[in-house]
Amino acid sequence: MKIINEGITYPQGYKAWGAHVGLKYKNKDLSMVYSEEAAVFTGLFTKNKVKAAPVKWNMAIHDGQKPIKGLVINSGNANACTGLKGEKDVVATTKKVSEVMECLPEEVLVASTGVIGVPLPIDKLVNGIEFIAPKLNKGKDASDAAAAGIMTTDTYAKQGAMDLELSGGKVMLGGMAKGSGMIHPNMATMLSFITCDAVIEKKLLQEMMADIVKDTYNMISVDGDTSTNDMVLVMTNGVSGVVIEEGTKDYQLFKEALLILNEHLAKSIVKDGEGAGKTIEVKVTGAKSKLDGQKMAKAVVSSNLVKTAFFGEDANWGRILCAMGYSEADFSEEELVISFAHQGKKVVVYEEGLPKDFDEELAYEVLKEEEIQVLIELKDGDGEATAWGCDLSYEYVRINGDYRT
Amino acid sequence: MKIINEGITYPQGYKAWGAHVGLKYKNKDLSMVYSEEAAVFTGLFTKNKVKAAPVKWNMAIHDGQKPIKGLVINSGNANACTGLKGEKDVVATTKKVSEVMECLPEEVLVASTGVIGVPLPIDKLVNGIEFIAPKLNKGKDASDAAAAGIMTTDTYAKQGAMDLELSGGKVMLGGMAKGSGMIHPNMATMLSFITCDAVIEKKLLQEMMADIVKDTYNMISVDGDTSTNDMVLVMTNGVSGVVIEEGTKDYQLFKEALLILNEHLAKSIVKDGEGAGKTIEVKVTGAKSKLDGQKMAKAVVSSNLVKTAFFGEDANWGRILCAMGYSEADFSEEELVISFAHQGKKVVVYEEGLPKDFDEELAYEVLKEEEIQVLIELKDGDGEATAWGCDLSYEYVRINGDYRT
Repeated sequence: MKIINEGITYPQGYKAWGAHVGLKYKNKDLSMVYSEEAAVFTGLFTKNKVKAAPVKWNMAIHDGQKPIKGLVINSGNANACTGLKGEKDVVATTKKVSEVMECLPEEVLVASTGVIGVPLPIDKLVNGIEFIAPKLNKGKDASDAAAAGIMTTDTYAKQGAMDLELSGGKVMLGGMAKGSGMIHPNMATMLSFITCDAVIEKKLLQEMMADIVKDTYNMISVDGDTSTNDMVLVMTNGVSGVVIEEGTKDYQLFKEALLILNEHLAKSIVKDGEGAGKTIEVKVTGAKSKLDGQKMAKAVVSSNLVKTAFFGEDANWGRILCAMGYSEADFSEEELVISFAHQGKKVVVYEEGLPKDFDEELAYEVLKEEEIQVLIELKDGDGEATAWGCDLSYEYVRINGDYRT
Repeated sequence: MKIINEGITYPQGYKAWGAHVGLKYKNKDLSMVYSEEAAVFTGLFTKNKVKAAPVKWNMAIHDGQKPIKGLVINSGNANACTGLKGEKDVVATTKKVSEVMECLPEEVLVASTGVIGVPLPIDKLVNGIEFIAPKLNKGKDASDAAAAGIMTTDTYAKQGAMDLELSGGKVMLGGMAKGSGMIHPNMATMLSFITCDAVIEKKLLQEMMADIVKDTYNMISVDGDTSTNDMVLVMTNGVSGVVIEEGTKDYQLFKEALLILNEHLAKSIVKDGEGAGKTIEVKVTGAKSKLDGQKMAKAVVSSNLVKTAFFGEDANWGRILCAMGYSEADFSEEELVISFAHQGKKVVVYEEGLPKDFDEELAYEVLKEEEIQVLIELKDGDGEATAWGCDLSYEYVRINGDYRT
């Protein structure tokens, strides 16, 4: 199972496009995705109590259990904390899509990302939909345009696709995401969209994604905040005719492919964390349970002190151990091993309850790399978990100290 | 009730001193506090699973329910992750104190702060105890010396004292603390010591402090990490002869004084947060419950995005609302008011579910101050809570990106 350099229009039956319609000063700011056939979908939405208007709309559609055909995503404005006007703007958006495409307003999902608390320039958005509709297309250019339209402080578009051979034939998956600041467990200021052409029940898709999100988007951390607009959506239109049923080998293969694609998008988000110079992968093995491993990996990758130590290329195992200690994971201190690694190089820095007299030069060789692994080996059970994060840099402070103004 | 510019030796019957004994390259690094009469004490210790050797020693003494006479605190070395040697070093330390002062080893508490995982140079520490013992003294100079000996990256000593008139006569309180980096709920890399000359049962003191810690040390945040060495200790030797009993007016007054002194020390720690240029006080009123208020105030003051916004002097109410939303506090969005304030100046930035078109110039006048209040007024009940934190600056990243090396 390999990630292909394609995007949201890769599976059969999807078109997309993205353009600049004036929501931002420059760059693309509106994207549409359209499926000719009605698509089953599942979504996971921000747990923030303050939810943006489009999030509320999608959650209601999700509860309605009906399939969808379209997706509109704008950047530059989050349509959050915008009161009644915000909700009306979502209605106007979906109505416009239903006028220009063959669908009902309630077959259209909406996502927004950008500044909070500023009313959406709805005329520009509605005109933008009219402008984009005739351009909707398949292929790499179309996927690229759609992926670009959802970016905010992202420095590159995040995409990926997959081919999957199943007993009933080939299934294709495509996806795009946006991230950057505020990325943390529970999907912070993060949008991720997956398209697929398999035939699968909504309930099954939902169960799969509930598991997958725990191992992917909920295991990444840029700065620990959770936004009002986060969502992960997966839609599948069944155009391939390949049916996936519970309890089969195909089910397992499909779930694995969905995991790999979502992990790819989640890691792309971390790599592009605001001001991030390094990607940190924290891998815990031998934990008492998977949950203990997750708590621990997440606490380590989320610690400001660990993040700044990586920025400073400092082999500071003390901060790692400290974060493990307050993670609320259960573990025995006496037998654990902590190492830093990059590809073939590995330096053990802590062993059997005591710091090791490690080779500082080799440690520096690992820590100067852009992708660093922290390996935490426990002897408490067979729980495993991996979390991804980035360093905390001057650049992070600069970007976030000067965003709104 | 007013904080006096005195310290740990202010109450009757206490002596202290601090000196440079070679644990650090320069500056004072060892302090002792001694009470001629055995003192009842209570302690609150780090919840980090990884506990330094002195923390384990003190917890065992605490469980033993016996009074104490001495306190030894070193800076420069945390004696954490030091294995069996670390535990033996604590024994050697208390043994030495028992030899040079009139007390038993188990009447001596120990605290350490500094680098993790490096064996304590125990000979220097033991010689240091011998050197300091004859210098133990009362008065401001003695308190200052002791407060200086516990500092690490602190830029100033944190002290305070109080006089308290009760029905039975005057009671005095003194205190010193150290903080700086890693300060967060659950008392991170933070040491705080309080002396008192009242007569009070250990059980009562313990109950009081359990409450007080929740409103003071657990409501401050510098960077969210919780260390292996944190503790708050309160000792009272009864020399004043003034008895404090449960359910009396004196009990209430004493508890209030203890709260004020601990709040003063907690706030001093925040003001001296690593690289901090501004102190942020987040005050929540009208919350559904006190716990809801605490969760909310703490989430706001701990958010990296809120912290960087204050560094950038940006009136970013969106990040505040966002942190409120993921704080897990229950609240109704529709009627809340968010303001920034400094002394007489106040700017309402959010009202009744919508951002307010505020005066940007007045907002800037408030935000350029060094002490800023964030007022969150809810209409959900009468729960109140206040949390204290600081901004996140380039300087924070510099200090922590380059600490161990």
